[in-house]
Amino acid sequence: MQTKASVDTVSGTKVTVVGVGQVGISIAFSIMTQGIASEMTLVDVMEDKLKGELMDLQHGLTFLDNMKITAGSDYALSAGSKLCIVTAGAQMREGESRLDLDQRNTNILKDIIPKLVQYSPDTILLIVSDPVDLLTYVAWKLSGLPKERVIGSGTNVDSSRFRFLLSERFDVAPTSIHGWIIGEHGDSSVPVWSGVDVAGVRLRDLNPTAGTSEDTENWNSIHRQVIQSAYEIIRLKGYPSWAMALSVSVLTRAILNNTRNVYAVSTFVEGIHGVQYPVFLSVPCVLGENGITDVIQQTLTEDERTQFQKSAATLNEVQSNLVF
Amino acid sequence: MQTKASVDTVSGTKVTVVGVGQVGISIAFSIMTQGIASEMTLVDVMEDKLKGELMDLQHGLTFLDNMKITAGSDYALSAGSKLCIVTAGAQMREGESRLDLDQRNTNILKDIIPKLVQYSPDTILLIVSDPVDLLTYVAWKLSGLPKERVIGSGTNVDSSRFRFLLSERFDVAPTSIHGWIIGEHGDSSVPVWSGVDVAGVRLRDLNPTAGTSEDTENWNSIHRQVIQSAYEIIRLKGYPSWAMALSVSVLTRAILNNTRNVYAVSTFVEGIHGVQYPVFLSVPCVLGENGITDVIQQTLTEDERTQFQKSAATLNEVQSNLVF
Amino acid sequence: MQTKASVDTVSGTKVTVVGVGQVGISIAFSIMTQGIASEMTLVDVMEDKLKGELMDLQHGLTFLDNMKITAGSDYALSAGSKLCIVTAGAQMREGESRLDLDQRNTNILKDIIPKLVQYSPDTILLIVSDPVDLLTYVAWKLSGLPKERVIGSGTNVDSSRFRFLLSERFDVAPTSIHGWIIGEHGDSSVPVWSGVDVAGVRLRDLNPTAGTSEDTENWNSIHRQVIQSAYEIIRLKGYPSWAMALSVSVLTRAILNNTRNVYAVSTFVEGIHGVQYPVFLSVPCVLGENGITDVIQQTLTEDERTQFQKSAATLNEVQSNLVF
Amino acid sequence: MQTKASVDTVSGTKVTVVGVGQVGISIAFSIMTQGIASEMTLVDVMEDKLKGELMDLQHGLTFLDNMKITAGSDYALSAGSKLCIVTAGAQMREGESRLDLDQRNTNILKDIIPKLVQYSPDTILLIVSDPVDLLTYVAWKLSGLPKERVIGSGTNVDSSRFRFLLSERFDVAPTSIHGWIIGEHGDSSVPVWSGVDVAGVRLRDLNPTAGTSEDTENWNSIHRQVIQSAYEIIRLKGYPSWAMALSVSVLTRAILNNTRNVYAVSTFVEGIHGVQYPVFLSVPCVLGENGITDVIQQTLTEDERTQFQKSAATLNEVQSNLVF
Repeated sequence: MQTKASVDTVSGTKVTVVGVGQVGISIAFSIMTQGIASEMTLVDVMEDKLKGELMDLQHGLTFLDNMKITAGSDYALSAGSKLCIVTAGAQMREGESRLDLDQRNTNILKDIIPKLVQYSPDTILLIVSDPVDLLTYVAWKLSGLPKERVIGSGTNVDSSRFRFLLSERFDVAPTSIHGWIIGEHGDSSVPVWSGVDVAGVRLRDLNPTAGTSEDTENWNSIHRQVIQSAYEIIRLKGYPSWAMALSVSVLTRAILNNTRNVYAVSTFVEGIHGVQYPVFLSVPCVLGENGITDVIQQTLTEDERTQFQKSAATLNEVQSNLVF
Repeated sequence: MQTKASVDTVSGTKVTVVGVGQVGISIAFSIMTQGIASEMTLVDVMEDKLKGELMDLQHGLTFLDNMKITAGSDYALSAGSKLCIVTAGAQMREGESRLDLDQRNTNILKDIIPKLVQYSPDTILLIVSDPVDLLTYVAWKLSGLPKERVIGSGTNVDSSRFRFLLSERFDVAPTSIHGWIIGEHGDSSVPVWSGVDVAGVRLRDLNPTAGTSEDTENWNSIHRQVIQSAYEIIRLKGYPSWAMALSVSVLTRAILNNTRNVYAVSTFVEGIHGVQYPVFLSVPCVLGENGITDVIQQTLTEDERTQFQKSAATLNEVQSNLVF
Repeated sequence: MQTKASVDTVSGTKVTVVGVGQVGISIAFSIMTQGIASEMTLVDVMEDKLKGELMDLQHGLTFLDNMKITAGSDYALSAGSKLCIVTAGAQMREGESRLDLDQRNTNILKDIIPKLVQYSPDTILLIVSDPVDLLTYVAWKLSGLPKERVIGSGTNVDSSRFRFLLSERFDVAPTSIHGWIIGEHGDSSVPVWSGVDVAGVRLRDLNPTAGTSEDTENWNSIHRQVIQSAYEIIRLKGYPSWAMALSVSVLTRAILNNTRNVYAVSTFVEGIHGVQYPVFLSVPCVLGENGITDVIQQTLTEDERTQFQKSAATLNEVQSNLVF
Repeated sequence: MQTKASVDTVSGTKVTVVGVGQVGISIAFSIMTQGIASEMTLVDVMEDKLKGELMDLQHGLTFLDNMKITAGSDYALSAGSKLCIVTAGAQMREGESRLDLDQRNTNILKDIIPKLVQYSPDTILLIVSDPVDLLTYVAWKLSGLPKERVIGSGTNVDSSRFRFLLSERFDVAPTSIHGWIIGEHGDSSVPVWSGVDVAGVRLRDLNPTAGTSEDTENWNSIHRQVIQSAYEIIRLKGYPSWAMALSVSVLTRAILNNTRNVYAVSTFVEGIHGVQYPVFLSVPCVLGENGITDVIQQTLTEDERTQFQKSAATLNEVQSNLVF
């Protein structure tokens, strides 16, 4: 595999991306284009695809501030990474049970995670593979790393979809809308309606029923759209990639640059919002060079709390059936 | 004056900055460094200073994406500007009354504003000169432009100082703190405590007295610090410039790129928060290529409303004494 | 199709991308991620794919400075574009002759180009579809636009690959290597060895035979690698996309921001380097808001000139067989 | 002094700027605005000015990606810096001899350099203080660091002025002009006319006498303008700052991001271009996280070589009179 000769030193901001499927490679392109890292390594078992992607990325370096990009199937290339982003995962086979798939994904991580930690013992892990909450737990167990250093991309992208759809309704820039989706990434996610805010004006102050079943303005349809949009995009173009790539890029920047920005990511939530199981779910977290330093506990309604706890119970049930 | 030969066409994103004092030139440098405009003209009566600044900026272009920069005392250079930023203004002379100073500043704008509008009849005016709320009104009267196209930089920078100080107390990135200062830029500004929010958690939900006289946690000291910091910076370094430069840069980007982001800027507030005078004060506004398209009316406490209205009355009083 | 409600005005920097195949959508993502345009419209006949891509891009806007993105099959959406980027094109069918394919691609442009010009009569066209030199000519004929406003992406990406490979050999950042590939995009491209330069040191001053058949250091293998890399990437990952996306992004920035940077793009070369046919081939051009304002005529060796003219003759031959 | 509480860890990309005069603070603002470092410490003896600048910068953080900024007179704050930028220096007093001034500046560095190295033993030093070539030598002697880790900002800014002035004559973007000024920063600098190049076309190929006394096109007037412009800017606006700030920013980015870009900076040149003294002068250098890894030896004319060597001899003479 054609890569630049290795050098002795490791850049301050080295990132490894494991898996160069559509999501993984879009993340890599997004990190490169935005100049977030000074060095990036791509790891995958598909050597051909990997080599093709490496060449294609490298051929664009002339148009950007330079960074070093390497790629290969050997995890030694990932040595010294501040952050390892894991996008590898299995697709469901016909007739396969959910549990069998989860076990197969667990087995994939059993191969990946120890090697990442071996070559970068002080790394932070950012898990993107789906089901992200379960696999972040699995990665944490396999890694031996402290909880704050194992993070799932979680509902950061759900929150982004939520804000975009709200921004269309308010006709304001998405970055001027605040709103959070927490809990499980996907169908069981929890929109925190009490936090939807534009310039200090809460939606709930304008419409106290917003998001509830009594709401005649039907705000909750926006949450349904968030959930459906994942399926919709799969149906329409095959896979979601761009929004996820940008979501992971901002998390990467927050970690590498130690910004202390708050994002909804999957973290260990035992003891939070009444959860009594050792599971990972998304809540707003402060991100920096040591991973997650603080968790923001929002004020949830009873319904929101119940939904959050239900996801936790389900995840715990699945986790107890996995063989490590 | 040495400038590049003029061309027939005008770039999509031309900006003029009037006044190259510390604030004006810092704004110009900030716009250039962040690649916000494709063309920038600097206008001032101090030809020497202007030529020196032009050369100094141009000599740095090799290190950035290219833009065209011109400078001169002739307003014809500003022709075709999408946005004109006015930073020119007089300093108080010893023994001068406030009203005399206001009249002198009005006279300065009487010279500047008609020329800007003559050469760029469809421009947007962004007034930075102090006292900004008064002079934005003056500029509007002199310009003949619709209200939504005359904007004062207002409390955008006060809000930024507020968020930074809050971010230190919360130990979170300033961009993850939401909080607004509205009303008059400077001593009489109004902090909207009900809108202070981190990740959907309102300060007022944690401490219902935050910002009030009953508050034992002394949050209001942060507002006092915001007010004092302007004087403090003048005492310590002579003038504030960097934060104002970045504040104006983000407003410039929102206008030129039509982003529809929300910022606290000075706009015509008759009819808003009970104001009955034709004055300009800051409230959160949606900014785009047509200037201000929407105003966000926050829910104010009685005290906040009173303070806002008091500023309006004072401004109206001053305005009625100015000779146009 | 779900798009934002149209507004009356058109942003200063609106771009349309026609065709959302891998190259077209990667260009769109790259433009969005780098904040190059304030408004972007995607046009394609595949309504489903288009809608999926639109949603996926929009869902990422929360992580960037805002821009407006629309998409649809109706060219009216493209109205007011400063730049239209055309990536649509046909793939060769089994048993199809080259000429038949060229005619099919011509027919596709017959549908696209007049509509683009109808809705944006002052636009600049940037043709990316392959064979790019031929189709840039076709687009020019169909558009009725002046020559300087119809540009092919040409050998800008070949030059980038060339510089990257040179940078690996010199162990210097690709942006600090200068070198140009001109002529026909693809197999018949012409590397201008006399222009290869690092910090004012010419390769030819170090090795006068570099790039020639007498060269014992085998520099010409780098040009062969450039040519093969296109095929190699197709074999390894299916299609080249990232480098092309970044190549087109820098051209877009140069045009929208009127930077007057020099890039190797396909332009009308009758009269240049001895060409006597009305064809488009790449030479270094100065790009700005009016398209191509100047062409740089490099000093070519006799071999380079011959190869350039040979490409011109072949293109002219093909062009004469097309039915418009 | 009000600074954020220290944390245990040190960011990957920490920079210290010593001296917050106009140049130092402009460098700090430029680094902050361009998001080049994740952490920046300002050190100066003027505590008041320093505190004012710190506040003014911090108040703008809300408008940027977050970074940590600290300031103080205690060098302990600089601990863990990857790069220390030194802008402190003395102004000539009336009647003071050149040698006395040089000795005073040496004494200033005697105070600064050992403290920087004490708290960041693996740092790179970037000396900006004038006379930069002499003081880079002084800093190297005082630091005990290897030669490649002590760099002077040198003629990077002279080269930028040169390219800008050439770009005006060619009417092309400054970033598309290549040209180098080497040797001593200031009056005795050496323009390398053989390297002036636009898109692979050498000025010398168009005009073999360009830059020589026989040249009827008077290209050398551009070099004279480069030299005079420093004095001109001092006369017109008091001090040059913006171009120097951007020049130092690109060097900072190259070092922190390990880009391996080539810039003209002051480095140890004994043995280069016939120099036989242990002095620092500017030549094109490859910059990365270990400082200078390679020096590019351009082909000089006899005149250029003589001028380069003359500067070296003069510097050596001055150096031999300094007391360490």
